[in-house]
Order: sequence, then structure tokens, then C-alpha cells
Amino acid sequence: MSDTTRPSALGSTGASELFQLLRDGRPRTRAELATMTGLARSTIGLRLDALSALGLVGPFSDAVSTGGRPPSRVAMIPSARVVLGADFGAGHLTTALTDLMGQVLLSRHVELEIADGPEAVLTTMVAEADALLADLGRSRDDLIGVGIGLPGPVQFSTGRPVNPPIMPGWDGFDVPGWVRRHLDVPVLVDNDVNIMALGERSHAFAGTDHFLFVKVATGIGSGIISSGRLQRGAQGIAGDIGHVQIPRGAGIPCHCGNVGCLEAVASGPAIAATLRRSGRDVPGGKEVIDLVRGGDLDAIMAVRQAGRDLGEVLTACVNLINPSVIAIGGSMAQAGEHLIAGVREVVYSRSMPLATEHLSIVQSRAGDRAAIIGASMLAIHHALSPAAIDELAAAV
Amino acid sequence: MSDTTRPSALGSTGASELFQLLRDGRPRTRAELATMTGLARSTIGLRLDALSALGLVGPFSDAVSTGGRPPSRVAMIPSARVVLGADFGAGHLTTALTDLMGQVLLSRHVELEIADGPEAVLTTMVAEADALLADLGRSRDDLIGVGIGLPGPVQFSTGRPVNPPIMPGWDGFDVPGWVRRHLDVPVLVDNDVNIMALGERSHAFAGTDHFLFVKVATGIGSGIISSGRLQRGAQGIAGDIGHVQIPRGAGIPCHCGNVGCLEAVASGPAIAATLRRSGRDVPGGKEVIDLVRGGDLDAIMAVRQAGRDLGEVLTACVNLINPSVIAIGGSMAQAGEHLIAGVREVVYSRSMPLATEHLSIVQSRAGDRAAIIGASMLAIHHALSPAAIDELAAAV
Repeated sequence: MSDTTRPSALGSTGASELFQLLRDGRPRTRAELATMTGLARSTIGLRLDALSALGLVGPFSDAVSTGGRPPSRVAMIPSARVVLGADFGAGHLTTALTDLMGQVLLSRHVELEIADGPEAVLTTMVAEADALLADLGRSRDDLIGVGIGLPGPVQFSTGRPVNPPIMPGWDGFDVPGWVRRHLDVPVLVDNDVNIMALGERSHAFAGTDHFLFVKVATGIGSGIISSGRLQRGAQGIAGDIGHVQIPRGAGIPCHCGNVGCLEAVASGPAIAATLRRSGRDVPGGKEVIDLVRGGDLDAIMAVRQAGRDLGEVLTACVNLINPSVIAIGGSMAQAGEHLIAGVREVVYSRSMPLATEHLSIVQSRAGDRAAIIGASMLAIHHALSPAAIDELAAAV
Repeated sequence: MSDTTRPSALGSTGASELFQLLRDGRPRTRAELATMTGLARSTIGLRLDALSALGLVGPFSDAVSTGGRPPSRVAMIPSARVVLGADFGAGHLTTALTDLMGQVLLSRHVELEIADGPEAVLTTMVAEADALLADLGRSRDDLIGVGIGLPGPVQFSTGRPVNPPIMPGWDGFDVPGWVRRHLDVPVLVDNDVNIMALGERSHAFAGTDHFLFVKVATGIGSGIISSGRLQRGAQGIAGDIGHVQIPRGAGIPCHCGNVGCLEAVASGPAIAATLRRSGRDVPGGKEVIDLVRGGDLDAIMAVRQAGRDLGEVLTACVNLINPSVIAIGGSMAQAGEHLIAGVREVVYSRSMPLATEHLSIVQSRAGDRAAIIGASMLAIHHALSPAAIDELAAAV
């Protein structure tokens, strides 16, 4: 149903389109590229010259000598440019520089308060970026894109947060506009769960086209990949499962103003509150995990019940979007198999057999790194798109 | 995240790619096409010749004379070929021939029993197709594709039904293979709710990229369009909301073998059963609609409650996929605003404000024709794709 013509690429020099074939990192001869594209060798030569001038493509040599002169091959140069990925939480910022294949070259972690507002917090991000660049011996000119994950709803098309509950001062702030005044490259902004979904898929489920990532931490949310694409929905807030009501939540107030939400029952703070009601001294989600790791039976049962509650909502998700993998991450996933066991118990008994026959429900494999990998992938995907390469080529 | 290169098109004659620009039906000059594509006028000429030889493109003339010789324009010829759309229900078959823009040229309706099995029923479909072709004075050679909707789960990639509950004899049957032996063109098969979603969107919501179609009849199901594409999920069964459990369903058995499913509470037969329990003589969904139209208060209240039950599940759908339009169709939607009022009541009070701020919940506008339009669009979309046009061109 989507439009398959791309007038910008059709009207370009064609170098950007050729580059898409080299993005997988494999070296190829000019003859192979001519066969793949149907273009004349002379045209291939001109387009490779344009990509070489940008530093994105170069001759590839391997160590094997065949005696004669081997056919020369060209390949993308992953280190040609770098990308900045930034993952903001309520109380931290992790930044990383990656190469054009998404390989993390260096990362940094600082504590900060997202509630200090966008200018203070983004100033820190720019300083962290400069520190990373300096440590790697690169300059701002080497930077080709920035990907940012924020802990609240973001209108992806503009990069502006929309009524983010834990981010005072950020509502409607032009994040890309502000960042571009300091780092003059494309800036992509999305909510943290979407970038974790991108990162988890890129890290461990690259071939999985129907994929659901669920974050269970202070809040609960999900990122949906259907038909190989992240699905953001009409307002960019798809995946917001934390405020679906569940039967066991009846009467329990949620910070969103409604009652009975999943998040009010199964998030880290909600599990801690459950344990406090039975007389235990459990300040928050972190202490719940400590107790579970120590084998505390009450904590294990509470986490397993939270898994069942999550399973109630995921059952509906499975019937609705029919994923083949659900990966569960976020800090509460560190409680190990207890949370996931509860999820599986409900989903496998309640969803339709055809939907669960080939469904895997697993713990996040990217773990802490899901967000930073995803933020980088977001920036790389944009920075290496045909339109962006056209723009780079036009600026040379 | 999806791969944006299309090696088949890159390796083709290029005629198929040029044709994609003309699929909107607008006439264009060779100069306009050269500007749009960046191709040489001579290349445009060669590719138009190939499309003319297929009869797909021809000179366009309008009635306005400018005195001088006007620049000649070319356009797609919608009547060049025809497409067969077929919509099977439990007890009927509707067929239609459409042109390449999806305009219905002629349609037929027969009663049959889907339970008679695939060979008997598909033989009827082929006979109906021949009758339609004869009535229009066209031949089987003019047919460029067949789209079929079936009342059960279908593996879209193979066109085979998968454990369809009301279709004995159809499980795993190679529908496209059988049909191609009689009508030798591409055959696309999907479940009826997916084709209704395609048809409804094509008919009334062409610009809506995040769209949910809900069918309420003997069963309850939905078709999801996200990012402009129908989302079928990993096993092709996305949208199966009829077997999500709802609190009010507690203890009510469903034909799927589980208890408490939405379908067991809010489908046409379920509403009729509710009315029978209060002593009314209501055999099925059709009689419920008759009562509602007659102003019967019990029936109106039962339908409105079914709308609320449906709203419980749609609230989760809204939070999860964030559509901008939900269209409600199927026979029970003929109960008018009462069903939809119940849906709105729950969705607008329970979903997140950001998700409902721009959400419309409306009655299907395509009505009875949604399925047949959708079946045709499925076939057209495939038959006019770059790969299919390449194949046609190669066969000339």
C-alpha cells in the first residue's frame, strides 16, 4: 500500500542509490555492482568517485595474494564517520560514539536530573559528545548524525516531547533545533522504549520482522516492530501498554489520573508497594530485585504475579499484532526468569494457539546497551538514507 | 529499518519503475516524466513503448484545443485489463470485475455453503468470473489478477487457510494453485477482515496511514493498517481481537475452547443469546438488528453494552497501535449508532488523552462493498507492482 517510488532518489545523482547496496559492509567489484544495478561500468565509476570524495567508500584489500593482479573491490568504510547515540533516563545520561555499522567505539555515563530542563541537560550532552570525540581523536566534522532517546512521549516527526510526565520544561521543546545549533548534523529523537526496541532487534533479532520489546521499570511501555519497521502510530505514541486496565488493578489509582492501569500494579514501584503493604521495608524496584536475587519468597511471588499481570495485557498484544518474539527488558527484567515465567504462564494459556505456536518470550539480550545501540541505529538509518547521502553529496 | 533497495527493479528494463509514476492515473508529457525521473528523453521513449506494447499506457487526449499542436501526453489506461475480486462468507459469494483503478465494473452475488469445501466453491467462483467477463464482453486474457477474501485465518504468503473453524475441508488447501489452473493469473488470498480493512481505507480513508477496521458480525475481528501498510503479523493472524478476554465475559464459554472472550459476549449471536436469557425470542444477530431498528429498548441496551465490551478491547488497541481512525463494519454495525456509542463511551474515557485527541470512531462507509473493493485492491496492488510488470514485459 505504501508508495514505492522515491522521486528524490530518482532525481539524484544516483550515488546515494548505489551506496545503499554497499551499506551491508561487503566489498564488491565494479563488475558486480554493474550486474546488481544494470548500470553501465562508466556510470558506476562516476558514482563511486562521488562516494569516495565523501570518504564513505574506498578500495578494499584483503591479505590473500593470488599472484596476478586481483580485481579491485570497493566497500563502505565504517569508520569514515561517527554517530552519537544518547540515552536519557530520569537521572542519567549515557552517550556513545559508534561507527557506521553501529559498533560502539566509546561510551560515557553521567548522572543528571532530566527535570533540570532541556537546555541544561542538552548542554551536558554536547559536552559529553565533545569529550568522546576528543578521546577518540575525532572532530565534530566527523559526526554524521545524532540519535536521542528520552523518557517520555515524543512526536517523532518534529523531535518535540509531548506532555512528558517526568520532564518539566520539556513539553514542546525543539530538541533537534537546539542540538543542531551546537552539532550541525541531523538529530533524531524518540522515546526510550522505541529506541530500546530498535537496539534489541539490531543486537539480537535482526531477522525478526514482527517483534515486541517491553520495558518494565519505573514505568511500563513497549516498542512495536511490524513488517520490519518501528510502528509509532498516528501521534507517535504506539506501544503505550502501561495504561491498559487489568482486572486485578480494580480501584488502584495510577499517576495518569485513571485507575487500574497495568503500570499501577506491575511496575517496579508498584511491586515494592505491594510488599510494603504486607509489612516489608522495600523502598523501590531496586530493592525488589535485591530481594529476589537473595531468594526472598515474598518478593519472588510478587514479581511472578506482576509477570502474570503483564501477561494479561501481552495476551491482547499477541492476538492483535501477532509478533514472533517478545523481548522483556528494563530494570525489572533483572529479576530474572520469575517475571518472564509469569508472563509466559498467562500468554501461553490465553492467546490463540496459532499465535503462540511460534512465539518466543525472552529476556532482553542487549540489556543495558539496548537504548544506546538503538539511538545510534536511529541516527545511522537516517544519516545513510538516499536523501541524506544526496544532501551530503550536494554540499561537497 | 526495511531495506529500501529493490534489486529486481534496478535490474529490470526500467519500464516497471516508470509505470509506478503513472499508476495514479494522471496524464503526463514525456518532458514531465523525464524531469520526474532524471532519465533521458530517449530512455523514456523506449520504456513507454514497452508499456504501450502491453496496452497499459497510451496517448491521452482531452477535449480542449489550444490552436497549436499540444504536447502529447501519456497516461495509464485503467480499462486495459480487469481484476476479479471475490468475497466469500459462510453462506455467500460476491464477485466483481474492476478496472485497474479499482472501479467496480460489474458484480454478482450467489448463495453457497463454504462448508461444501474448496473445489465445489471455487468452481462456482470460476463460473461466476466467466459470467462476469462474458457480460462485459471481455475474455480471460484481459484478466490480470484475482483477489479472494475467505472467512477464516489464511497464511497470506501461500494463500492457504490455517485451521479455519467454519470451513471444513479447507485447512491447508492450496487456493492460489487450484485457481491458477483455471484462471492463469496471480491469485492473492487473505482473510475477510483484512480485505475489508483494505477496501474501507481505499473507499473512504485513503490518506489515513494508521487505521483500524473492526468487523462485528457472527464473529469479531479487525484489520490493522499501520504506516500505510496492512499488518498481518508473523503468522498472518494479526488483528484477532475476538478472543481477547474481557472482565464481563467471566465464565462465559467461547467456541474457541477458552472462556470470557469478547466474541462470546459481543458478537451478533452473543447479543441474541443475552436477549433470549431475559425471555425474548431472538434467534440471531439479524433479529437483534430488526428489533433495534424497531426501537426495542432491551435490544438497544444489549447492543450498547456490546459496544462497551468492544470498547474495552479497543481501548487496549488504541494505546497499543495509536490509530487515527477506527471504522466499525460487519452486519452488526447496521444497528446504527448504538453500537458505536457504546464503543466511544469506553474508549474516550479509558484511553490516554494523547491517543484519543485526534481519534475518530466511525461506522463503515463502504458497508457491504468493503470486502469486494478490498479483494480487488489486493489483486491490483500485486498485479501492478514493479515485479509483476517486469514479468508481463518479459512475456511479451
